[in-house]
Amino acid sequence: MARNIELISVGNELLIGKTVNTNAQWLANRITSLGFNITRITVVRDVVEEIAEALIEAVSRNPQFIVTTGGLGPTFDDKTLEGVAKAFGCPLAVNAEALKMVQEKYIAYAKKLGGEKLTLTPQRMKMATIPENAEPLPNPVGTAPAVTLKNEYVTIFALPGVPSEMKAIFDNSLVPVFTRSAGNLSFFEASIYVNGIMESEIAPLISQVMKDNPLVYVKSHPLGTETKPRIELHLSTTAEQVETAKKRVGRALTQLTESVDARGGETKTPKSQKKVMPS
Amino acid sequence: MARNIELISVGNELLIGKTVNTNAQWLANRITSLGFNITRITVVRDVVEEIAEALIEAVSRNPQFIVTTGGLGPTFDDKTLEGVAKAFGCPLAVNAEALKMVQEKYIAYAKKLGGEKLTLTPQRMKMATIPENAEPLPNPVGTAPAVTLKNEYVTIFALPGVPSEMKAIFDNSLVPVFTRSAGNLSFFEASIYVNGIMESEIAPLISQVMKDNPLVYVKSHPLGTETKPRIELHLSTTAEQVETAKKRVGRALTQLTESVDARGGETKTPKSQKKVMPS
Repeated sequence: MARNIELISVGNELLIGKTVNTNAQWLANRITSLGFNITRITVVRDVVEEIAEALIEAVSRNPQFIVTTGGLGPTFDDKTLEGVAKAFGCPLAVNAEALKMVQEKYIAYAKKLGGEKLTLTPQRMKMATIPENAEPLPNPVGTAPAVTLKNEYVTIFALPGVPSEMKAIFDNSLVPVFTRSAGNLSFFEASIYVNGIMESEIAPLISQVMKDNPLVYVKSHPLGTETKPRIELHLSTTAEQVETAKKRVGRALTQLTESVDARGGETKTPKSQKKVMPS
Repeated sequence: MARNIELISVGNELLIGKTVNTNAQWLANRITSLGFNITRITVVRDVVEEIAEALIEAVSRNPQFIVTTGGLGPTFDDKTLEGVAKAFGCPLAVNAEALKMVQEKYIAYAKKLGGEKLTLTPQRMKMATIPENAEPLPNPVGTAPAVTLKNEYVTIFALPGVPSEMKAIFDNSLVPVFTRSAGNLSFFEASIYVNGIMESEIAPLISQVMKDNPLVYVKSHPLGTETKPRIELHLSTTAEQVETAKKRVGRALTQLTESVDARGGETKTPKSQKKVMPS
């Protein structure tokens, strides 16, 4: 099982550079730690056709899940579900369960506001209007329910773009599904910092370590300059048992440290990771 | 002229959620302010085939430019130019001009380091190995040159992933090209904050303002909750003259403010934007 997941971020604010895509980073980090590979992140505008195209293209790469963020609210520019409907040819309709979720929110809001009546305007009804074969997922923080849809190709989760809502729904509704699906797969990562060797000199050392440790991925991140080099080497792997993953990364880390030492470089292991190094 | 640009961010660190994609946000912001539309951002792993596919897909959507970040360094996982070569069927070769750039860097580094000789290892040669029909762009901050390649479909710029290098090359080499190409097109944006009206209530007001001001894009960003609502309304437009753009946004902003007032909401204009509002 490939365990691949794609993310689709919807929102003009991301494409005019008004907002940094921290949602994608948060999701990628959480999903990777659950044992999946994020194979692509696509950011598209609030345009039905562009959302639909991104979905169709993602499906063609055959991921196990697609997670979208943004575009579920009550305003005209919240178009993600129209995009889902267009991509999969399933019409939008008011969903009874979703409507109940939205209604309950507004009853609670009205109480909070001292009994003022809150009618279900078209904009509020919009949040309960989802693809016919989809199911709503409760939003413990905000108003618009998230949506999940499973078809013959893929399972899609459409989450809101407000970070607190996105995170709460992820933890409540997606983590259980992903955990069940991933089995016990664990992702493990560690870093060391190398001073005094240029990135171009470290390159062949990394190649050797990756050759000797084929299941560990090593990536170098230059933090200094070539004349005052400071490089982070990030090692990661995925394994059935967290202990296997740790041991694997530890072995590669030791070899890398030794070969950097031999070249006259200086390595620093962050304290929190000392336990990874075999003694 | 559509003035569309796509960004492709290359790097596993973005897909495991280790790094937030601030490069894409910075580029999107700068490029939008030069009068272009960023129509899509694609984030792919350090895998030649995936980089090539993302490039081919982007080209098929017919943007004027494609800007990639990441994957130009000396290590094995710097694969962007291999991806470009694969996508466009142009073999990689050592480029004389790029080699001169890299050599000069290492001569300067050697001087700084007190005369130690720095040989051009295969890893260092790699930074001068670019697609045959491409040209190197000087990197005033780091070692690896950026690359530009123009073919019958599109002009591509491949920038390094280190933010300081990416930004310096963008300012020196891309801004002049984009400015020439965009003519005098200016992007203008402004925000107001609305307290005391729910997003679902503001939705119809926004629709009316967008109908009356068809060239202004209005987007709402909920910052509070439905019962303690605080919403940012972001207005933007692009015009030949910055004064035209300002006037257009100002007119929409006034109408929006008045209709929020009429509904009993409270608006706040950030001080720096007061000048946008027609007096």
